This record gives sequence, structure tokens and C-alpha cells, in this order.
Amino acid sequence: MSLEQYKGLWLKGGITLALNLIDDNKRVVEVGLGERDFYVDVESESSMSLEEAKKYAVFRQSDVKIEGNSFSYKGQTVVVASDVKPEGNPRYFEILNISVHHPSAEKQYVRIRGIAFETEEQLKDYLGWLERATETDHRIIGEKMDLFSFHEEVGPGLVLYHPKGQLIRNELIQYMREINDSMGYKEVYTSHVYRTVLWKISGHYEMYKDKMLIFTHEDDELGIKPMNCPAHILIYKSRERSYKDLPIRFSEFGNVYRWEKKGELYGLLRIRGFTQDDGHVFLREDQLKDEVKTLVKKTLEVLEKLGFKGEDVRINLSTRPDESIGSDELWEKATKSLIDALNELGIKYVVKEKEGAFYGPKIDFDIRDSLGRWWQLSTIQVDFNLPERFKLEYKDKDGKLKRPVMVHRAIYGSLERIMAILLEHYRGKLPTWLSPVQVRVLPINEEVKDYAESIANKLRSLRIRVEVDVEDTLSKRIKRAYDDGVPYILVVGKREMAEGKVTVRARGNVEIRGVDVERFTSELLKEVLNRSPTNTAIESLK
Amino acid sequence: MSLEQYKGLWLKGGITLALNLIDDNKRVVEVGLGERDFYVDVESESSMSLEEAKKYAVFRQSDVKIEGNSFSYKGQTVVVASDVKPEGNPRYFEILNISVHHPSAEKQYVRIRGIAFETEEQLKDYLGWLERATETDHRIIGEKMDLFSFHEEVGPGLVLYHPKGQLIRNELIQYMREINDSMGYKEVYTSHVYRTVLWKISGHYEMYKDKMLIFTHEDDELGIKPMNCPAHILIYKSRERSYKDLPIRFSEFGNVYRWEKKGELYGLLRIRGFTQDDGHVFLREDQLKDEVKTLVKKTLEVLEKLGFKGEDVRINLSTRPDESIGSDELWEKATKSLIDALNELGIKYVVKEKEGAFYGPKIDFDIRDSLGRWWQLSTIQVDFNLPERFKLEYKDKDGKLKRPVMVHRAIYGSLERIMAILLEHYRGKLPTWLSPVQVRVLPINEEVKDYAESIANKLRSLRIRVEVDVEDTLSKRIKRAYDDGVPYILVVGKREMAEGKVTVRARGNVEIRGVDVERFTSELLKEVLNRSPTNTAIESLK
Repeated sequence: MSLEQYKGLWLKGGITLALNLIDDNKRVVEVGLGERDFYVDVESESSMSLEEAKKYAVFRQSDVKIEGNSFSYKGQTVVVASDVKPEGNPRYFEILNISVHHPSAEKQYVRIRGIAFETEEQLKDYLGWLERATETDHRIIGEKMDLFSFHEEVGPGLVLYHPKGQLIRNELIQYMREINDSMGYKEVYTSHVYRTVLWKISGHYEMYKDKMLIFTHEDDELGIKPMNCPAHILIYKSRERSYKDLPIRFSEFGNVYRWEKKGELYGLLRIRGFTQDDGHVFLREDQLKDEVKTLVKKTLEVLEKLGFKGEDVRINLSTRPDESIGSDELWEKATKSLIDALNELGIKYVVKEKEGAFYGPKIDFDIRDSLGRWWQLSTIQVDFNLPERFKLEYKDKDGKLKRPVMVHRAIYGSLERIMAILLEHYRGKLPTWLSPVQVRVLPINEEVKDYAESIANKLRSLRIRVEVDVEDTLSKRIKRAYDDGVPYILVVGKREMAEGKVTVRARGNVEIRGVDVERFTSELLKEVLNRSPTNTAIESLK
Repeated sequence: MSLEQYKGLWLKGGITLALNLIDDNKRVVEVGLGERDFYVDVESESSMSLEEAKKYAVFRQSDVKIEGNSFSYKGQTVVVASDVKPEGNPRYFEILNISVHHPSAEKQYVRIRGIAFETEEQLKDYLGWLERATETDHRIIGEKMDLFSFHEEVGPGLVLYHPKGQLIRNELIQYMREINDSMGYKEVYTSHVYRTVLWKISGHYEMYKDKMLIFTHEDDELGIKPMNCPAHILIYKSRERSYKDLPIRFSEFGNVYRWEKKGELYGLLRIRGFTQDDGHVFLREDQLKDEVKTLVKKTLEVLEKLGFKGEDVRINLSTRPDESIGSDELWEKATKSLIDALNELGIKYVVKEKEGAFYGPKIDFDIRDSLGRWWQLSTIQVDFNLPERFKLEYKDKDGKLKRPVMVHRAIYGSLERIMAILLEHYRGKLPTWLSPVQVRVLPINEEVKDYAESIANKLRSLRIRVEVDVEDTLSKRIKRAYDDGVPYILVVGKREMAEGKVTVRARGNVEIRGVDVERFTSELLKEVLNRSPTNTAIESLK
């Protein structure tokens, strides 16, 4: 669908809304176009409900004259932030969204987003298209599911996680903690702010300065971390280390900031502040193969849990580029360790000749999502450079001080990236262990409300995330539960109550009546505790 | 003990060390005095072990001439960073600590810290004094227990948590999550960086700018958050809220930065970057009393778990100051709600007249530690100001938009503060649930190593944090376990192995022989799961 053809009509719609608002003594400051809609900004002490906004979305003849980039009406001057020419007769409106922001300390703007068409059919067509177009857009899914938000007052590329988004984050963290634990990682936690001398030692100051937040405060030049490695190195260096201590493995859910260009930002996928599931291993060169083997195995295990396996996972091995540091011998040994690790696991991989970093060879994992798109995700990177720059040492068996090798690794990549990919891959219908609401109980009427609550309490006591929804008609509640991405809906009526049972509705419009509550609970628990990527509970209840 | 009398001697000791190092072709750059010792900085590609450093700590006649702030010897110029006059004949040295730092990208300095005296008795006295003086200093305890570190390259007041420190942090977080959960809080997670418009709306830009990190990057003026409230407010504002939704409770383990003056920094107790156990409640004014009641009750519960109760907890109620915002009615109602809450709980409190914030009344909790010092910890603060500045609203029963009241609360205050207080209060001997290592198994000899490992594995499978220590003599290992703050030491020999038993050693030099492994495990689990402030397991084994 070409959106361009409607832009004049939408702008006209926005102006129409503005005029109606001004007639009602509202203070309109700006009308403009979004990616897929128009917007009208109203300066106001108070927010506005969707219903209230709809009252102003009615057709009227409007022949305001735009001069420069504004028009005047009843003494108000309204900015028109678009070069599109308003046109047509918009009669069919839909208000899509209301939000509030503060352009300055004193003012508050209510932003009304909507669309407008000349015929009802056009509107219907467009809404249908919009729904399809946005059902795989994590930004829209995230807003619908109340997971996170971006704000003018925070700035582009900086996200606030709402409770349900933080639930997903915490589930992802908890899972990765168990994975890290099983590999012998020890979790650390490091400052976000550092003196820039650290980034000068690491080389980031020279190579990465453009993307860093660096500033001077009082006498110090400071920088916010774009990576966690130098901090982990300082922890390594805080003690003498012996060959017996290696490998030393530090993990961190590290909050980093990389100042990408404003125009390149895209929801959680391209963002300025994010959290890596970071990890660094300090090890002897002869330990590299086994370490990589474990890491590759565990990475594949994680990817499978998230729903990606077989042909949908691609492994790349990148070798020494033309410009590099480190001796020939070191490169050969390290590259051989990676190759041996992959071969011993019997894993197919693609060699990317000369695509390694200047500081060491690496293994990357790409995954293919349900829309057929490939994403680069996990990475295992050998590093000869930082140990050199930071003069890392361990005392070997022979009493001599030697330099360890470092491995950087991230399995999710970042919590933001994996969350966005999962939301799009699953169209918001996340695996149950990741679903913010796992079960919603819908009592058919008032009479069975207590029964519904008793089921919810039972599930709650087992740490299942459950809600009871009593508002609206049953069909509306079922639709809402689907839209919210809830994997299991329990409908209970008089009959279910009498028999101590429930009707289970699951994704894909599956419905099973007369299910024993105990049976459902135990199958659900299995699904959640296994972190199953599919809805195994409903399968085994069928 | 007056340290001043020894400073000349120590400086002379440092210079002596420097000369010996230079004789061995080391590159010494600086000699100076610390709070309780001297230091010598050696520029070096490599670190140095304590043993190696000790070789240079021997008496020699030294009559170097300090000119300005340096002396020269064998062509090297060494800075003397002290105005104290070096004097005396230091013959008895102790090297206390070796650390490494980078003053710039190219250089690495090894810092040797030590002391020196003229007689062996002086040295012994001093070491005894030092041990007593530092056994309640969380900075020393933290270093001994390998919990956290501060670094020149990071900057003053910014901390790096090592694995064992992060374990304590995570235990504190997990407990507070359960407490928050039981009160209906929903955890959120918010950016560290914000456009300053946010701080202009909140008023922090005007009132708190001195302590904030504010900087300009590209076109934006940005600030790192010193508080989480404005971010939580934006989440509140991202949706329409109804009277039925209130109270809405957001919690966050929020990482904030407050740029305290360098001279005022003190370990974790006065620090620039820290993590609050923050929480904000948005509620109707008529809900205030019940909310505060729950909060006070839960706060006392938490303080008791941490080891503070009865006379060691003091509650303060601070009332309206002369300068304040908000109507008389609002102040009266809110203050009455706090008083009623405390009275209904039958709790004694001290009224601090006019000591409330300008934006609302508050309740503070002070605790007294084992050294008799009082610390301000938890706080419950009513706020009429931010709801006004951010124009917060909810739709009331009558359909009208009304302004909610806000409550700020923190129970620990911050993870840093509570960790420091607990380390000092318990002198590093933390309650078992907070101990990084909960059990250490010491096999008497090689023969019973496997038996020791089998016990450790058993405990590990129950998520007990356990280590096996096989190095050194048994008495050294026992001492080390005490020093590391390990609450339970299991000593196993041939007899224990034959009988499937262990000898349990606990704090306060308690030893119980022939304890059944199952029995010990179940008592230990009880102690940990109850988060007991005392060692109940050993009590019940007696």
C-alpha cells in the first residue's frame, strides 16, 4: 500500500480536527504527519481520553490558508509541520492514539494521532492493512502489550521498561544466569561512568569516541561505558592470578550506551542505551578449544529454547584480516582451536575469510526468524589486544608471569535486541515462560467469579502469572486476551465450577472443554519450567 | 594511637624501599604517605608479588637529599609527594598490599604499600592496632573478602563489584523483590541518560544541578539520573489511569549518580554511583493511611531480618516546614494519615516538627549498629509537588480527572549503604543467607578429599554456596575461612568419612563433632531459607 497518496487527505484531516478543537476553545499548537498517520498537538493542563478526542473528529468545510508553515484561526496560530498539500474531503476518521509530552518545563502537549479518509471503505481497508503491517512490528506490539515506551523528554533511542517489559527482561536474565552458572561464570557489576584514561588504555577513546558519551565534569574527563570489558579487566587485575585460577569467567548484564545516529535508531533493534548479556573469559591459550566448545554448545541450546534451530541457525567463523595484531603463531593456534572446537562438535559452519577483528578470530551465530529474515545474534570473540594493552598476567606453573588470552562473548547479544526479535518472530505471542501474563481466567458471569479467583490464587501460589478479567462481554475479553499475547485462557461457567474443571483456550483457536484443573496446572508448570518454545501443555491436553 | 609520630619514619621507609628497588634497576617514580602507611610507585610492564616486594624492604643507610619535591639517585628522579620530613632508622618493615594502576594509556605503575619501624615491638603493636582498627571498616573488609574495588582509572566514588560482592547485592535484591511483590509493586527498568528537559520539569535541574552529571552531546543537553521518580512518572503518564487502578506501585533497583564532593567520599557509604531500592506509589489521598501502614510494617520486618529491632530502631515523623507547597487541607490530611498509620500499628515515634520536605511529610527509620552508631536508612515520603509539576491525573468514579498523591520510598536506602552498614555491623561475618561462601569443607588430608567433594556437591545441588579448600595446613585453612567470613566450616577426616559425618565449626569458636551430614544440611537450609540474622543451625546442633 502506498501511503503517499493519502498524506494530503490525512493532513487535511488533522487540520479539520484542529479547527474543531479551536472551536471548543482548545489551544492547538501544531498539526503534522507521522509515518502512517497525522498528529495534532494541543497545549493542555489535562490529558484527553480517546472518546473525547473522537468527538472532534468530524467533517467540516475548512478552507484555512497556510502561509509559510502555519495557519491562523480565531486568533490562534497553528504550525503545520509538513510540506504536503492538504486536500480532499476527509469524512471518515479514526483516532489511533493519545499521548502526552512536555516540550519544556512549563508546557504540556496532548498529541492526538489519527487517520482520515473520504470513504468508509478506504478507512476499513487501511485499518486492515495497518493491522497486518504492524503485527510484526515490535514497537507496535510493545505498545499494545504495555511493555516499554520511548519519550520526547527522555530522548531518542533511550527506553523505559514498563512492568510487563521488565518481567520479560527478568525472565531472560534469569535464564542466562542459569546458563552462565552452568559454565562457571561469576557475575559482576560495574560502574556506568569512568575516567577517560580507561578508554585511552583500551583504545576505545581513539577508535570508538564518536559513539561514546564523553564529557568533562569539574577536573575530570569522563565517559559512559559502551562496553564492559575494561571494567572486567580491572577486576581481573585487582588480584594476582595463578594458572590454577584460569579460566576466570566474569559475566555481567551490563548497561552500555552507544550513541548511534538519530536517523538510524529503530525501536529496540537500534537503540542508544541497552543491556548486554556480556561475558569475558581470561584463559590460557591451551584452554581455548574446550572453552569455545562449551560456549558453542550452550549457545545452540539457548537458541533452540528461543525457537531457533536446524536450518534457521547459521554459524560463521571469521579468520585473520590483512591488518591485525598478534603473532602468526598465536593466530594460527587460536584459529585452529576454534576450528577444532566446531569440528569436534560435528557442526557445519561457513568460513568468512579475513573477516575476523584485527585483534582475533571469532565465531558468530545468525538466526532466521518466522518472516525469513536473518539476524546476527550471538558472538564468541578471541582477543589478543586488550590483554596486551592492559598488560594482563598470570603466574604459570614455572613461576613465570605470562599473558592470558581473552574471550568476549554474548549469547543474546543484548536484552533489547533479543526481545525485539522474539516479539516480531512470535508476533507478540511469546513462549509461555516469557509471557508477562501466562494465564487469564474469564468467569462467564458474576456467579462464578469466586471460582475464577480461587483458580487464579492456586496458580499464583505456584508462581504462574495470572490475571482474572471480569470487565466487558466474554467475546471481548477473549479477543483482548489474544491481543495481549496471553497463551492460556481459562473460561469458567457454572458447569465448570460444579465439576471443578475449566475450559482451556489456547493460541490457534484451540478450545478444550472439561479439563481438570490439576491436570492443566501440572502440564502448564511443565511447559514453563522447561522454558518450552511451544505450547506443550495444550498439545498434551488434546 | 597517633599516626603522626610515625609518618617521618614511614616516609624514610618508603625512600629506603625506593633506593633498594633502584639498585635492582627498577624504575621508581614516586614515594608518598597514605592514611596509615607509605607507598612507592614503580613504573613496570609487569606486576610484582608480595614476596618479591618484601625482598626490597631491608634497612640501609640512606642520605638522599630531597630538593623541592624530589630526590635523585643513580640518574633517576623520584617524586616525594609529602611535606613530612623523613627521619629515623627503619629496620622492621611490613609490606601490606600491592596494586597496579595506569596513570595514562602508555604507563603502568605498581604501587607497593607498607610500613616501617625502628623496633620489632613497634611493628607488632602497630599491626595489632591496625587489625583492630580495620576490622569494622567496610572498605578493608570488602577488600579482604574480595567483594569490590575502587580504581584510579574508574574515578573516585565509583565502584566495581567482584563476584562475591555481586552475590551479596543479588541476595539483597532478591529479598527486596519478594518484599515488593508482597506489597503489590511492579518492577520497572529505566534509562540512565535523559534529556535535561525532564529535570527542568521535575525541578532537579534548578535545585540539584550541582550534584548532577549534565553535559551537551551533539544538539542535546543530557543528564544522568540522580533519581528515578521522573522516569516512573513518565511510565505512569504513558496510559490513562482510572481510580480503580490505584494505588499503582512501581519499584526499581535504580542506578543513580550523585556527584558528591571528592573529599566527602567514603567507601560505599558516601559514593557517587549507587543503586537504590526505589519505589513510587501513585494513589488517592484516601488510600494513604493503609499504604503507609503496610510500608511501615514491611520496613520493620526487613530491618529485623537484617538484625535491627527493638531499641535499635527509631522512627521519626517529620511535619510541615515553614516553606512548603500544597494546601493546608492536603498537608493536614496527609500528616494525619501518617500519624494514624503509626498509631494503629501501636508504634512509638519521634515527631520532628517542621522537618518535612517542602513537598510533603515523611517517616524515616534510623537503626543503631553493633558499635552503637545510628544510621538513617529507610524513608517513606509523601509528595504533592511532582504530581503537580508533571500534571498527573487519574479518572475518578465521577468521571472527573483528579490529581494523585505520590509516595517515594526506599527500605534499604541503597544497596551500597546497606552493604557497608552490614559489613561493619557484623564485622564481615554476615548472616548466612548473605555470605558469599556459606560453607567451606576442609579435608584433613588427601585420603578424604573425595569425601569432602561429595559433601560439597550435595550442598551445591541444594544451592548452598560451598567451597572445598585443600591448600595449606588445616589450622591455616581454618583461620582463612574465619577471615573470609565463612559461617560454617566442615572438617572431615577418616573417622568422619567412615561414619558419614562431619565436624562442624562455626563462629565464636564453636566446634561440634560427629554431626550427621543430613542433619547439618537440613538445619543449614532452614537458616538460609528463613534468612535468619543469627546462626540458628549451629544453635540447634548444640
